[in-house]
Amino acid sequence: MTSELRVGLAGLGTVGAGVAAILAHNARALAWRAGRGMRLTAVSSRDRQKDRGVDLSAIAFERDALALAERDDVDVVVELIGGEEGIARALVEGALRGGKHVVTANKALLARHGAGLGALAERHGVALKFEAAICGGIPIVKSLREGLISYGISAVRGILNGTCNFILTQMEASGRPFAEVLAEAQRFGYAEADPTLDIGGGDTAHKLTLLTSLAFGTAPDFEGVAITGIDKITPADIAFAGEFGYRIKLLGVARRTAGGIEQLVNPAMVRAGTPLADVESSFNAVAADAGEAGPFFFQGRGAGRGPTASAVIADLVDVARGALGPAFGRPAAELVPPRREPAEARMSAYYLRFQVLDVPGVMAEISRHLANQLVSIESMIQRGRAPGEPVAIVMITHEAQHVAVVRALQAIAASDKVVEFPCMIPMEAA
Amino acid sequence: MTSELRVGLAGLGTVGAGVAAILAHNARALAWRAGRGMRLTAVSSRDRQKDRGVDLSAIAFERDALALAERDDVDVVVELIGGEEGIARALVEGALRGGKHVVTANKALLARHGAGLGALAERHGVALKFEAAICGGIPIVKSLREGLISYGISAVRGILNGTCNFILTQMEASGRPFAEVLAEAQRFGYAEADPTLDIGGGDTAHKLTLLTSLAFGTAPDFEGVAITGIDKITPADIAFAGEFGYRIKLLGVARRTAGGIEQLVNPAMVRAGTPLADVESSFNAVAADAGEAGPFFFQGRGAGRGPTASAVIADLVDVARGALGPAFGRPAAELVPPRREPAEARMSAYYLRFQVLDVPGVMAEISRHLANQLVSIESMIQRGRAPGEPVAIVMITHEAQHVAVVRALQAIAASDKVVEFPCMIPMEAA
Repeated sequence: MTSELRVGLAGLGTVGAGVAAILAHNARALAWRAGRGMRLTAVSSRDRQKDRGVDLSAIAFERDALALAERDDVDVVVELIGGEEGIARALVEGALRGGKHVVTANKALLARHGAGLGALAERHGVALKFEAAICGGIPIVKSLREGLISYGISAVRGILNGTCNFILTQMEASGRPFAEVLAEAQRFGYAEADPTLDIGGGDTAHKLTLLTSLAFGTAPDFEGVAITGIDKITPADIAFAGEFGYRIKLLGVARRTAGGIEQLVNPAMVRAGTPLADVESSFNAVAADAGEAGPFFFQGRGAGRGPTASAVIADLVDVARGALGPAFGRPAAELVPPRREPAEARMSAYYLRFQVLDVPGVMAEISRHLANQLVSIESMIQRGRAPGEPVAIVMITHEAQHVAVVRALQAIAASDKVVEFPCMIPMEAA
Repeated sequence: MTSELRVGLAGLGTVGAGVAAILAHNARALAWRAGRGMRLTAVSSRDRQKDRGVDLSAIAFERDALALAERDDVDVVVELIGGEEGIARALVEGALRGGKHVVTANKALLARHGAGLGALAERHGVALKFEAAICGGIPIVKSLREGLISYGISAVRGILNGTCNFILTQMEASGRPFAEVLAEAQRFGYAEADPTLDIGGGDTAHKLTLLTSLAFGTAPDFEGVAITGIDKITPADIAFAGEFGYRIKLLGVARRTAGGIEQLVNPAMVRAGTPLADVESSFNAVAADAGEAGPFFFQGRGAGRGPTASAVIADLVDVARGALGPAFGRPAAELVPPRREPAEARMSAYYLRFQVLDVPGVMAEISRHLANQLVSIESMIQRGRAPGEPVAIVMITHEAQHVAVVRALQAIAASDKVVEFPCMIPMEAA
């Protein structure tokens, strides 16, 4: 057995403590898999004294995380600090430059700087691994990087944020509005005090950026993701979706198109009975088409101590047994930015909901504006009569240009019979 | 870049031709991932001339597959011959002894001889890889061996045979009997001319044996699998299952129990709406509980050219980049046979169907025999009145000892009011 792999751990929150616990309690079984021992030699966090349920008294402590990159007794740095800049970035860069491997759960950092960091790792002959950054309970990074590599992948779709899926599932089950369900989720710790990154779609976009890179062999291109969050979704939309045979999910979608690569994060109508539609509560899932190898679907826990720590450990075992390889599956020099599909090329069928005054002529006006933009209607629900009061008109369009639908909605929104900007949700054929 | 990995391919059927095609057409992208080139240097098959849609004219041909193990220009042998003994076994053993890596799709061989072959590979410092042996379109071997390794796995459940799932799905959709649907599947090439290995559950048991080994770190123990096939399932059972809110699937199940490890292959009642119940047609799926990392579920194509060739290639890339490691994730010396759960300990709730003459006293007789064995009834359907003719009595029991239920059924079958041996299908909580 070769000498042991010495681990420096930056960040001792719930996940970091989980990693330390596995390293402490599962050393023998991990050594079997790794072909050598792994040992935690140094940790860094803001608070040394806090009880984390694992004995760290014999392990070197650094108040400054950056010091981990300098220590001679650290072969691999585990970065669990988070954030796309600042100390996390400095630590990862410092470690790689110092010839240390890096294992990280930091999706934001990699979505923004993944290509450069991958190149840096390659230059210094070390690994940069990030299984924990996307759906920790599913080995999706390894599967895309090493497993389903023989045929081109044409599309990847994911439910990548457990908080959003939890909120949407709760809204559906209870019929309660977004703000109320979010507040409850915050009270129970299922949502952050500042939930912007989750509900705004940013977290999903970070993860999608990495999936896109792994699936298509392109450099991570976070700026190329069109992002819409879930905060405008109403219980009415969820109920109408059900009537049409769909469920609303916050999806990250990356597709190879004629024009390039399309990356979208938005609430989408997913047909009931398909695997993605059935993903409940805070579960994560990824579905993809792997050409002749067929479609595949993975579901599991996305975040939290167990799934994320488990993913970090799997990366550490890979590092220990010398399974290094380029971060995104191909050499940095071959990792080119994707050609972005032009916004004008974006096509989809759409669910549209109009809140209108129940007065004569409103349907004619909506229809005219849609027709002007060559958007045709596949099916429609109009219900409830309340003369002079707002009612909902709901429709699903045939496939149409995204920009044309937006133009039609802008024209419709200008009408004095329309009481709010119409809701527009793409139909996702999954 | 190091020297290229030279591949010898035994078996040029549909999968072998697929592997050759990927190696020929996708060389550059694979070299990026592997860190070096991979080249097919020698092939073996019964028929040299057959057109396989890929140009093999420049590649050495061996009529005798065993010769591949002797060739100096072969670093890794891909075994696609099949069969648990004979030439496949001799080739794999010969290759490993000769210091050549082996990649195989041969589940039967590994289920029977996996521990010994793994030890042989280890002794000679080479890899033995078998992603293609189980659900080719899902990287489940890699995921269990390298991904979800931090916490103990408590249970694995799989739909591992596409032919059986296709037949059951067709029976459900059409209401037609097993024999008719099987015959049709054979006509369309979805089932083998001799379907015994599929419908009898043997193929599922081979795959389960390997999953069990990967999940629990035990030596493959094919003899420890209790196997029941799908040939006794009737459209009536499928319809009754639906009424109770279940679907019938041929499952392979491995569980850690108080008494050891339980391995079962049998048709099972799976609750509608759970991921496994929703697996349609010839798709394969694996669900497992990975402790604190949570439950996970994978679905994809199981067999056929694309999925299987894709899995072979992934293993070849692992070999090329030096990701070797023990075949079953831990050193051969640590790979001990599982303690088998004693047959008497086996517990489950059961679906029972009795074909009885519609005469007074029959229900009393059935109830008495069940009560004698301490089997209690949770719910029951009895329908159709046909005095003197056979009718079905269907029930679901509370959890009961398997052997007790069998004893009760034997007593019941002896009654002259019961026209055939009762049908017994376990309920699988998934």
